[in-house]
Amino acid sequence: VSLLFHTAWENAEVWRAALRDALDGEAVEPLEGGGEADVAVVWNAPPRAFAAVPRLKLVCSLGAGVDHLLSLSPVLPGDIRFSRLVDPVMAERMALHVLAVVLRRHRNLDLFERQQRDRHWRRLFHDDAADTTVAVLGQGSLGRPVAAALAAAGFKVVGWARSPRTDLSWPVYSGMDGLHEAVAGAAFVVAVLPLTAETRSILSAPLFAMMRPGAYLVNVGRGEQMVARDLLDALDAGRLSGAALDAFESEPLPPESPLWSRREILITPHVASLSNPATGARAIAAEICRFRSEGILRNEVFCDRQY
Amino acid sequence: VSLLFHTAWENAEVWRAALRDALDGEAVEPLEGGGEADVAVVWNAPPRAFAAVPRLKLVCSLGAGVDHLLSLSPVLPGDIRFSRLVDPVMAERMALHVLAVVLRRHRNLDLFERQQRDRHWRRLFHDDAADTTVAVLGQGSLGRPVAAALAAAGFKVVGWARSPRTDLSWPVYSGMDGLHEAVAGAAFVVAVLPLTAETRSILSAPLFAMMRPGAYLVNVGRGEQMVARDLLDALDAGRLSGAALDAFESEPLPPESPLWSRREILITPHVASLSNPATGARAIAAEICRFRSEGILRNEVFCDRQY
Repeated sequence: VSLLFHTAWENAEVWRAALRDALDGEAVEPLEGGGEADVAVVWNAPPRAFAAVPRLKLVCSLGAGVDHLLSLSPVLPGDIRFSRLVDPVMAERMALHVLAVVLRRHRNLDLFERQQRDRHWRRLFHDDAADTTVAVLGQGSLGRPVAAALAAAGFKVVGWARSPRTDLSWPVYSGMDGLHEAVAGAAFVVAVLPLTAETRSILSAPLFAMMRPGAYLVNVGRGEQMVARDLLDALDAGRLSGAALDAFESEPLPPESPLWSRREILITPHVASLSNPATGARAIAAEICRFRSEGILRNEVFCDRQY
Repeated sequence: VSLLFHTAWENAEVWRAALRDALDGEAVEPLEGGGEADVAVVWNAPPRAFAAVPRLKLVCSLGAGVDHLLSLSPVLPGDIRFSRLVDPVMAERMALHVLAVVLRRHRNLDLFERQQRDRHWRRLFHDDAADTTVAVLGQGSLGRPVAAALAAAGFKVVGWARSPRTDLSWPVYSGMDGLHEAVAGAAFVVAVLPLTAETRSILSAPLFAMMRPGAYLVNVGRGEQMVARDLLDALDAGRLSGAALDAFESEPLPPESPLWSRREILITPHVASLSNPATGARAIAAEICRFRSEGILRNEVFCDRQY
């Protein structure tokens, strides 16, 4: 057996070796070469690359996001199944990234850096975390750990999800009606959403109008969820005080993007939840083994619900 | 009865009102005016201001640091007692400040900001928190919550204290012999120390030489604990990768200080553990009432051990 593989990531070779190790030495070949493989492990693979893989049965994502898999589904045979990467290490990484960018703003580190450039010493005060609400949009395998980490740090947390849920220790609002309630009192709105028809462009003027004046936006989901023009307008109007953005409609973010030069915006190059080759390859290998031996997927992606 | 009060803080009037409220309307008068008061609540009061307060019995600190009280003791009558401010809100604030500056470096937010200025998109990788050791020097009423918050975020924590202690869920090294063991494997060394004869200038070349090459220093204690020249040399030599400094020998940090312009250094204007007038005044009022009614201090400062 062999496995096909595609990613443009800098650490592609590390992943390749980790997958080979996790699969007891199975050959890991480039997707572009085609072949008799039953499984492909990919990130942003071009649809045409699948043309010469007649026996393909499963496509695994190298990351938690799966919109890149869903965009393949119309051009692949209908019986091919899809799996996302679920790795507790990625959830921890995502949670600490969000904690890092929220605390940076909450504790004025961004403003102190500006003062430092001017050699200016001025104390700035801050609310206590217990008096600061953070709304976490998305309560999936990454959104829940994000909310839990913020709550553990002392913030008041509210969640928002597609469907109601009452099994968490923070309130979760649901549906488009619940969105206003979720964000209205929040100093921070953190989006950890899958990209679906409902969440595309959700971070735009209507949502910003529901947010508290001066609130801060964090997007660690997908760039297509945010309307950059609306964000810039909201910043100009003082509706939002700033944003920390990790995902963009076009990546790398083009040099001509007006987002780069806004000092209220922190741009990180899609690193909030880097997948870890060692633990990630083991999780993917376990999913492949379950699939090959029993036809079972634990982290299946469903095209109808879009995640 | 009346209370004497001195601070140069911007929010002095807020504190004054909060103390009056917490003490059922007791008059809060400027220390400089002298008078028959038994208690003074101060931050950095000049010793000569106490000349006209003959009945003084207790001096309370407006913050957790008490070196400013100890420097008064040689010039005040020997029976005057001293009390520090212990407020759980301050401990939480300190813990979140340290978490904020550690996560900023750990998750490369400082480097991503530099890349952003150049419109440069490049992923940078990071160790997992579980593989990253943070050494917390000082295990007092602020050091312990700092260590607990870092441990809760997933970091490996080791502590260092003057005396051995085994009641904490992380290892604590003690004595000058234990210092090397505490810091040798740490990616971050966080100093939350009282200023004493032993800790004065402790953050200097000998300690930096014990640290792992490329380690990061956080000082939220006192400026007198750090030898700025040694820090700059250690940065130039690449021994340390950077530092987040909240306290300085002279505050405000003078505009001519070479620390301002080092991009590996983050300067915050002594805000890590801002005292909270509402909760702080209640804690101080409770201490004053205990002292007046029973002669008992819960948070007494002892001149012999210097904290």
